[in-house]
Amino acid sequence: MKVSELGEFGLIELLAKIAGQSKDKSVLIGIGDDAACWRTEACAQLATSDSLIQDVHFALSTTTWRELGWKALAVNLSDIAAMGGLPQYALVSLGLPGDIEVASVAELYEGMAELARLFEVSIVGGDSVDAPVVMLSLAVVGRAQKTQSVLTRSAAAPGDRIAVTGYLGASAAGLAMLKKGLELYEKDKETAATLREAHLKPYPRVVEGQAMARHGVKAAIDLSDGLVSDLSKLCKASGVGARLFTSQIPVHPMVRGSFGDDSIKLALSGGEDYELLFTAQPEVIYKVMEAVPCPVTVIGEIVAEPKMVKVIDEHGNEVKLEKEGWEHFAGGGG
Amino acid sequence: MKVSELGEFGLIELLAKIAGQSKDKSVLIGIGDDAACWRTEACAQLATSDSLIQDVHFALSTTTWRELGWKALAVNLSDIAAMGGLPQYALVSLGLPGDIEVASVAELYEGMAELARLFEVSIVGGDSVDAPVVMLSLAVVGRAQKTQSVLTRSAAAPGDRIAVTGYLGASAAGLAMLKKGLELYEKDKETAATLREAHLKPYPRVVEGQAMARHGVKAAIDLSDGLVSDLSKLCKASGVGARLFTSQIPVHPMVRGSFGDDSIKLALSGGEDYELLFTAQPEVIYKVMEAVPCPVTVIGEIVAEPKMVKVIDEHGNEVKLEKEGWEHFAGGGG
Repeated sequence: MKVSELGEFGLIELLAKIAGQSKDKSVLIGIGDDAACWRTEACAQLATSDSLIQDVHFALSTTTWRELGWKALAVNLSDIAAMGGLPQYALVSLGLPGDIEVASVAELYEGMAELARLFEVSIVGGDSVDAPVVMLSLAVVGRAQKTQSVLTRSAAAPGDRIAVTGYLGASAAGLAMLKKGLELYEKDKETAATLREAHLKPYPRVVEGQAMARHGVKAAIDLSDGLVSDLSKLCKASGVGARLFTSQIPVHPMVRGSFGDDSIKLALSGGEDYELLFTAQPEVIYKVMEAVPCPVTVIGEIVAEPKMVKVIDEHGNEVKLEKEGWEHFAGGGG
Repeated sequence: MKVSELGEFGLIELLAKIAGQSKDKSVLIGIGDDAACWRTEACAQLATSDSLIQDVHFALSTTTWRELGWKALAVNLSDIAAMGGLPQYALVSLGLPGDIEVASVAELYEGMAELARLFEVSIVGGDSVDAPVVMLSLAVVGRAQKTQSVLTRSAAAPGDRIAVTGYLGASAAGLAMLKKGLELYEKDKETAATLREAHLKPYPRVVEGQAMARHGVKAAIDLSDGLVSDLSKLCKASGVGARLFTSQIPVHPMVRGSFGDDSIKLALSGGEDYELLFTAQPEVIYKVMEAVPCPVTVIGEIVAEPKMVKVIDEHGNEVKLEKEGWEHFAGGGG
């Protein structure tokens, strides 16, 4: 059955069922009224919104609907994670062409609901409208552990070390593989599958962000546009500069294996790894390393010279990057 | 300058300036970080999201950018109003083709900021992405006055009277005029301008919704899809039925003047008036009438027979409606 045959109200009922009744007792009103309602204690609340648009952020030829639902929520959870917060409630605005199969939209919601359950996020509302292409616009509301523990882009200070969670470059490598055609990577199916998943089903560092906040980290950003691009934003917001050492960048081992010399570029400029970059004094970084389940690697340092991100290679020479990362609308300038 | 020339980050900086620094001291972090952050007291929080898509919800040939920005926020404030709540924070996800003029996007934001200032709503975040058509997806978070005073769709009870704020049919009449071409209405420019504005710049009933909650109203919905359609949703959610009396419907006087016999249809089935429909005992409705600045009219009653909305004409006969209102994806079924 097509979405146009089921109609808006039938679709909302179906999606509400998949999203499920919230087990969170603070939720007073979920999907189906004019607005969602939940009970909150006095706290510092966090909120973010982010959209995925067909043929800009994803292609239906290379992603499953389930992965798409997962990713749309994941990129928003990643923003809450980058503030050191706990994501709690999600609102989903869906734009859909009328000829999309209802079963596809159900899968999309299942992917979203799967990730929501993992982090105990309640899908409490949203709307669905007719649109020329598939668009997912999500808003996620959460809370900080304490007001003073919120991680910001503007709190980096000279002398801080720069660290990242996980490995870099895998998402951009997966995208490159998808664009060329995965059949080219038949020889190593495991690598192809891993890098594909890194791009299509990123895992938000929610637990890690909270550990950072708890252990005294003050500055963080999630890596959506690319390492150098996102670090530049953090530097600009903090009025500081940064030095990155390419030899220390944790390039994903499978990227190194498959992309050789290009792998460092993918790690520096490729977007959508959704790892967290944070800055702190070394002793704070060590505490975070001990507290989180994923690798944490020191990759550089914050300097006073404002707004400059210098990338230094293994010989101590500065590397010039052609393109810092991914920016929307960047056909002409940017 | 085109959006593609300015680039995403330049655009965000510009829009942040137009949105302005929030005067709300509870806002700790506004536009420019991974997520917005505000301090909240213990309360019942409300949240809603709603999207407007080019050529589905609006045409750039008939709306100004400023009106479009206003309306995108207004429809979300209307949802918070329908819960009897106070809107506080807005997140704006913009999808824009790269060839849109930056000046146009600035106007759009000015329209949004104008309405936000009026109701002391802080625009605290969002994102902007490349898209094939203009799409505005907003999320608004607010709060109820008290947990027990939230207005819901599910609280209507047999014996309640049904009332609406303001006048009905003006938005649908404005849309009909815009579709036919406003030049046809040269004879009465004031009517044309009023009805056009009713469609393009609806005024959310935020003050009225709060007065309802304060005076003991329990059930409400905002009129976005059409009077009969929205009343049907309220009846379904409450497990009740309703009788509407056409002779009591407050058809907008200018609609009556310009559309004659069709005007009652526009009032019953036309969408997007963004008035509030609520149900309560007569004495509660009288209190609301005295408390709010706009007209409040009793138009029918809630009955026990579930899920049926009967429309009764001035002779006591039931009127059959061809189409209850506006539903998305309703090309085929729905």
